[in-house]
Amino acid sequence: MSVKTLDDLFLHTLKDVYYAEKQIVKALPKMAKKATSPELKTAFTTHTEESKEHLARLETVFESIGKKASAVKCVAIIGIIGEAEELMDEVEDAEALDAAMLAAAQAVEHYEIARYGTLISWAETLGYTAAIKTLQLTLKEEKATDAKLSSLAEGSVNKKAA
Amino acid sequence: MSVKTLDDLFLHTLKDVYYAEKQIVKALPKMAKKATSPELKTAFTTHTEESKEHLARLETVFESIGKKASAVKCVAIIGIIGEAEELMDEVEDAEALDAAMLAAAQAVEHYEIARYGTLISWAETLGYTAAIKTLQLTLKEEKATDAKLSSLAEGSVNKKAA
Repeated sequence: MSVKTLDDLFLHTLKDVYYAEKQIVKALPKMAKKATSPELKTAFTTHTEESKEHLARLETVFESIGKKASAVKCVAIIGIIGEAEELMDEVEDAEALDAAMLAAAQAVEHYEIARYGTLISWAETLGYTAAIKTLQLTLKEEKATDAKLSSLAEGSVNKKAA
Repeated sequence: MSVKTLDDLFLHTLKDVYYAEKQIVKALPKMAKKATSPELKTAFTTHTEESKEHLARLETVFESIGKKASAVKCVAIIGIIGEAEELMDEVEDAEALDAAMLAAAQAVEHYEIARYGTLISWAETLGYTAAIKTLQLTLKEEKATDAKLSSLAEGSVNKKAA
């Protein structure tokens, strides 16, 4: 990595998020499979499809700045998903596992909210108009997923786990 | 780890956040030292002190549920801070480094926002009234720090890095 300017940083972070979305697309179906609550299962499945769309959108962002889409290893998402997988192995009760996976998914969402927020803010400074709009679409969906998970937690998942 | 109920999960996540706050208290002074923008330096220093207070608050939460404060390794925060440290080693330009560290700090804040949000939601289900109030105080400060960082990014740090 040779990062000297905000341009370099934008490209590096774009590759980092591209990597993260790829990991998320792999992790979510496993979580959907393990989920007991039908609503949680649906939330994970729906967000898998959304995340595939986010990957496609990132590809258009790379294109809009004249770069080829590529990924750089993102140790942050490896840690966040790693923690989710640890819990998936160790939580014995099905309802507690739902609560644990829901919480893990919210940690993933917040990572993405932080990263897309940063990318949008940098794209604004750099005048990457096309990128701003595309990234904002995804940020909106990440926030909506987080809110949906919060309402699922409070509405049913936590009570069943208690 | 033997997690069967939401109670177990609450305690496990409390230990995870306790570990995370300890790592943050170690990482922030290094980031303050490397920051060029005086406002960013101040933000990192202020948040170091706040994070020490968050640790003390977590100790009162442990106490309120009759447990001794202890930490469990949190691979998520290790990943997030690890990514920040990678950038701190590799970004050559001082202004770009400020923008990179600010973004990394926002990823840390969002991890904490997710975790404290989860703990509050579980404390509500479990009827841990004293814990709810204490955790809400901290969540409010994490959100305020994230907002302050966003405004610093948009106000000066990103422009200088461009």
